[in-house]
Amino acid sequence: MNLLAPAHDKLLFTPGPLTTSARVKQAMLHDAGSWHFEFNDKVRWIRDELLRVAGVSREQGWEAIPLQGSGTFGVEAVFATCVPPQGKVAVLANGAYGERAVQMLVHAKIDHTVLRTPEHTPNDPAALDAALEQDAAITHVCAVHCETTSGILNPIAALGAVTRRRGRAFIVDAMSTFGGLPIDLEHVGVDYLISSANKCLEGVPGFTFVLCRRARLLACEGWARSLSLDLLGQWKGFEKNGQFRYTPPTHALLAFVQALIELEQEGGVPAREGRYRRNHATLLAGMTALGFRPYLHPDVQSPLITSFHYPADPRFTFEVFYRALSDRGFIIYPGKISQADLFRIGTIGRVFPADLEALVAAIQRTVQEQGWRV
Amino acid sequence: MNLLAPAHDKLLFTPGPLTTSARVKQAMLHDAGSWHFEFNDKVRWIRDELLRVAGVSREQGWEAIPLQGSGTFGVEAVFATCVPPQGKVAVLANGAYGERAVQMLVHAKIDHTVLRTPEHTPNDPAALDAALEQDAAITHVCAVHCETTSGILNPIAALGAVTRRRGRAFIVDAMSTFGGLPIDLEHVGVDYLISSANKCLEGVPGFTFVLCRRARLLACEGWARSLSLDLLGQWKGFEKNGQFRYTPPTHALLAFVQALIELEQEGGVPAREGRYRRNHATLLAGMTALGFRPYLHPDVQSPLITSFHYPADPRFTFEVFYRALSDRGFIIYPGKISQADLFRIGTIGRVFPADLEALVAAIQRTVQEQGWRV
Repeated sequence: MNLLAPAHDKLLFTPGPLTTSARVKQAMLHDAGSWHFEFNDKVRWIRDELLRVAGVSREQGWEAIPLQGSGTFGVEAVFATCVPPQGKVAVLANGAYGERAVQMLVHAKIDHTVLRTPEHTPNDPAALDAALEQDAAITHVCAVHCETTSGILNPIAALGAVTRRRGRAFIVDAMSTFGGLPIDLEHVGVDYLISSANKCLEGVPGFTFVLCRRARLLACEGWARSLSLDLLGQWKGFEKNGQFRYTPPTHALLAFVQALIELEQEGGVPAREGRYRRNHATLLAGMTALGFRPYLHPDVQSPLITSFHYPADPRFTFEVFYRALSDRGFIIYPGKISQADLFRIGTIGRVFPADLEALVAAIQRTVQEQGWRV
Repeated sequence: MNLLAPAHDKLLFTPGPLTTSARVKQAMLHDAGSWHFEFNDKVRWIRDELLRVAGVSREQGWEAIPLQGSGTFGVEAVFATCVPPQGKVAVLANGAYGERAVQMLVHAKIDHTVLRTPEHTPNDPAALDAALEQDAAITHVCAVHCETTSGILNPIAALGAVTRRRGRAFIVDAMSTFGGLPIDLEHVGVDYLISSANKCLEGVPGFTFVLCRRARLLACEGWARSLSLDLLGQWKGFEKNGQFRYTPPTHALLAFVQALIELEQEGGVPAREGRYRRNHATLLAGMTALGFRPYLHPDVQSPLITSFHYPADPRFTFEVFYRALSDRGFIIYPGKISQADLFRIGTIGRVFPADLEALVAAIQRTVQEQGWRV
């Protein structure tokens, strides 16, 4: 065991859980009663604040519903609750998270169709339009805003326009974008948006949340295939007495209050997006100067997570690379693409351009030390 | 907003989330990479330590599987994964948690039967025996060890003996007992035990865990009705690369490492049980001296949570009582029984007999202040 702990945690250049501020973590130094009115007030505040960050309100018919578990639980909760017994979901997939949505539907025995594009190619709104025209059984469309498999941004505005014109409901997995990139829910035509505490909102992991149109949700009575993942039941619980139906991650929620305060202090979503874009630009400039090639075309690259090709040098191994960077205090992410050897670097969380400069310098030292040709 | 924060948190006399040690909370002041080997080592350690606390081992065929979400998610994961498509569950119910298990089965459209006893009466092993004899379709039996609805202890050893003799699988919801009361898994004949981080193990909420016989679990291939709640899939994920399949509550897991270390430092389950029993005895002596009457017969009362009747005085209101105790720094729990007006006081978490004495003194002052006749 390493008894001599370092002065600070290793920085996480991952798509989350990610590096959070000291104050966000310090907010967890309290035990709160999960049924206590003081805690319920915070839950209410979080629900309102999530809508405010999204630019919508309850008066406009929107609801914010936190749910225990990871983001995957939130996506599955939407399927399990909001797709009618005879419903059918069209999933737009160009990576692991689209495929994971498909797996949820397989497990729940919900009818579905998958519209795939290659991992470096955005979802195709024209293909969606054709599918919705041909298959009247499709009731819901599901897309992943940023597929963190590669870091690609999908065209949710165009997909939403098609979905709305064809009269279907639109589910957006905005796990790694909400709070970091602007999303105009009304303009895009989102019906259900799922995200997580520990992504661009810079909270700690422990719960997911769904933003949805109340009228859509209320129409789902009796459809829930799971008690734990019953989104309508969860909402009713909040409305009834302000409480989570089942034990909430109280500490993660206290941290989230602080995280939302700090988002506002930073200047809201535009300011956070600006920082993430500067992080990404710093990373990209540094890495390309070292000879590394990004996987995606700049037109479809998100500023949130970036995939890079392995160096051409056959002596390169990701394991050695990863360990060397870890020893220098930087945690990166392995690749997840089936078609290419990649590693990934996240630029979200409480990290700044200077941290990306330090990461690039550590990568440079590692490459030199190993004598790899990039 | 209350700008003058008190010197310490209010003490939680609830069945969890509960008061935890300062060090447990301080363990959350770190951001860990959820795929990082140093974090995976901790997850491995937690899984092994849970088995050690339970007195079993992987060599003996047991597995410990943490799962994101509250304890309810863990119970539902067992149903969703481990009951075959044509399976049927007999649920022993004498409170809200037994009824919640029934609701899970209703949502998942899993066949089931419910063996109810009144809320102050333990589950009936003879009734279970008769049901298992008469209904060959029943594949699984589910019981709640301590029904925190009332605080009643159910006879899991007798139920387990019947279940084993009849050749069925035994699922035990040990949410509020595991770590606080001894449970001999082999002797009781448990196949699946579900508990949670934030109960007698004195961690913070964020995940649940299932202890189960590996052979039982491996036989469940292809049955999972949910991806998020797929217990076999979760286990396979750990076995494959040591990682949670989906984002884990990293901070809650870091806290749990410390919580398990502190359980060992206290002297393990026997010492913790001893403290909880002293807490309970202190509470009961103090409350009965004030004239309060416990709801349950001592023979079936757990030392974990105790239900008391409201004072006879018609001017008593729980709301005033609760607020007055909250103002004095003590959080108690409302009742959950349908048949009687009760409130509940938990005696688990990082609280000691002196804290229970202080609580009783606060109750005495409140009663005197309000002029209630008890």
